[in-house]
Amino acid sequence: MSRRIITFHQKPKIVSAASVVGNLESEGPLKAYFDLSSPDNQFGMQTWEKAEAELVRECAEIAVKKSGYPVSDIDLSFAGDLTNQCAASTFGMKDKEIPYIGLYGACSTFALSLGLAALAVESGVGEKVIAEASSHFCSAERQYRYPLEYGCQRPPTAQSTVTGAGCVVVAKGPGHLPTIREFLPGIIRDFGIKDANTMGAAMAPSCADTVLRYFEKSGNEPSDFDLILTGDLGFEGHEIFLRLCNESGLDLKQNSDDCGKLIYDPKKQEVNSGGSGCGCSASVFCGYIFEQFRIKKYRDILFIGTGALLNSTTVLQNETIPGISHLVRVSLEE
Amino acid sequence: MSRRIITFHQKPKIVSAASVVGNLESEGPLKAYFDLSSPDNQFGMQTWEKAEAELVRECAEIAVKKSGYPVSDIDLSFAGDLTNQCAASTFGMKDKEIPYIGLYGACSTFALSLGLAALAVESGVGEKVIAEASSHFCSAERQYRYPLEYGCQRPPTAQSTVTGAGCVVVAKGPGHLPTIREFLPGIIRDFGIKDANTMGAAMAPSCADTVLRYFEKSGNEPSDFDLILTGDLGFEGHEIFLRLCNESGLDLKQNSDDCGKLIYDPKKQEVNSGGSGCGCSASVFCGYIFEQFRIKKYRDILFIGTGALLNSTTVLQNETIPGISHLVRVSLEE
Repeated sequence: MSRRIITFHQKPKIVSAASVVGNLESEGPLKAYFDLSSPDNQFGMQTWEKAEAELVRECAEIAVKKSGYPVSDIDLSFAGDLTNQCAASTFGMKDKEIPYIGLYGACSTFALSLGLAALAVESGVGEKVIAEASSHFCSAERQYRYPLEYGCQRPPTAQSTVTGAGCVVVAKGPGHLPTIREFLPGIIRDFGIKDANTMGAAMAPSCADTVLRYFEKSGNEPSDFDLILTGDLGFEGHEIFLRLCNESGLDLKQNSDDCGKLIYDPKKQEVNSGGSGCGCSASVFCGYIFEQFRIKKYRDILFIGTGALLNSTTVLQNETIPGISHLVRVSLEE
Repeated sequence: MSRRIITFHQKPKIVSAASVVGNLESEGPLKAYFDLSSPDNQFGMQTWEKAEAELVRECAEIAVKKSGYPVSDIDLSFAGDLTNQCAASTFGMKDKEIPYIGLYGACSTFALSLGLAALAVESGVGEKVIAEASSHFCSAERQYRYPLEYGCQRPPTAQSTVTGAGCVVVAKGPGHLPTIREFLPGIIRDFGIKDANTMGAAMAPSCADTVLRYFEKSGNEPSDFDLILTGDLGFEGHEIFLRLCNESGLDLKQNSDDCGKLIYDPKKQEVNSGGSGCGCSASVFCGYIFEQFRIKKYRDILFIGTGALLNSTTVLQNETIPGISHLVRVSLEE
């Protein structure tokens, strides 16, 4: 029992998914899969913070609309983001009148909210439950690093925070929809990385830890899955993750990818080590991945949200950057 | 089913509780009930932020020790606080090697973590689960308002952030322990308050909303409970809450109190409208309230965590301060 993989028997399903992104994301390789984008990243608002809240609001609205349920039927919502005190989620969700549980898991938040939404449906706490996560490049830059106007250069290992949100409605539903089958909550791992521009390296050990624990406990093999999708380690972090797994005897080279690598084209878009931010894995999952389930290209995947647990003060106080990675398994029924 | 009160049938129990506080709290009316205090609020650390993480670490350590379980038996932990990106909880819990779920509910966080820990035990996701919340006056002041050195005056409606943490271990346990029986997640309510020094007024409507929904759905009467404990509305907010309930036909004057009113002596301690911060309701519940269950003074209470969903940027951008209030019912078995 102890610290086991949480297995859902009631088949909580992803009934609908929505993704809303910014300009850069809407020009990237996954552009065909997003529901909506804002050409100026402002979503009609006057500040970046209000824009991010609007992003959350619109994304939830589309997901609920696609589900076909009236919003008054949604029993519970889980959401989180990177802004201080998760204000984007609060202000994005505040007028919806849905019971609300705020989460913080840095860039692992979407996987965490998926796992908890599935638990809510499994346990009967809610019949229809929302899971959402978001981030915004401009609100994140000025909160964690420098004002955009400063024009600061970023090293090659830095990731670019995605302007985006992803939202799903989870419920018991028709058999053809993707089912959240398993959930393995992460353990915080701290390998001593202190550079906030090398977050892939800070998160990779926790991601390897969660994935290694999953395969050890489940008895499954990597080849059992169509995809082992991390989000968001970026180019550098994903390479470190693969190496760490390989050193422990787990070869994932054939079927692992990372949301931070998928969302941009690094040859044409200036994103250094790829995408990051809660909205990266959320929008990639709700856009591209959900569609691959629909066309049955994917039937069984592991999705591992990876978070770097820092704030601007911990970095200034010379603290390390611990990582946490939550895993969910999403499958089509046999 | 929809948005109903979550009722726990597996009797998740509070096996142990620990509270750790700062200097001012250790001199207040509840001083006899706390496990540990720091005379200089520094907990042996060199910054306020590191002190708050240490507070979280020590409090969890005491709660686990009191439970009698080895730390390796704890399946899951829920924690949150007020620092940006919940860093106090992260850094306090990071070396414990316990699966970790980060929450954000402002001052409602402890009630939220109690409810989710009970759900984890109820659903069999974990046998032994930690719920914790914390705050620190000095880290909160400089993050939300002004550096302490500035010596800013505060208006009479301002609440004083408690330096403190509370932590419980929830599990199925012996019959005499307090049981988490019900959980009603809050809905965000926004009544347009914009003054960050009047947070009691910002939170009171959401608290009244949750309590009114509870009595409407449960069919219970206020007189069924030994105490209807809010945390933390403070002196002003609690009065507004009682008035709002009264206007809706619910008279709580006889048996309602507030953690922010209990923790300090406003005649001797300079705390304006009383205590606030995640650590206020957490330390009052884990210290004073848990002891009242032990001596059977209380047998059945409603505990409503109340959170003000602001950050320092939302206030500067002239946003309102929405509130959210999560309710848990804690009872001794018949």
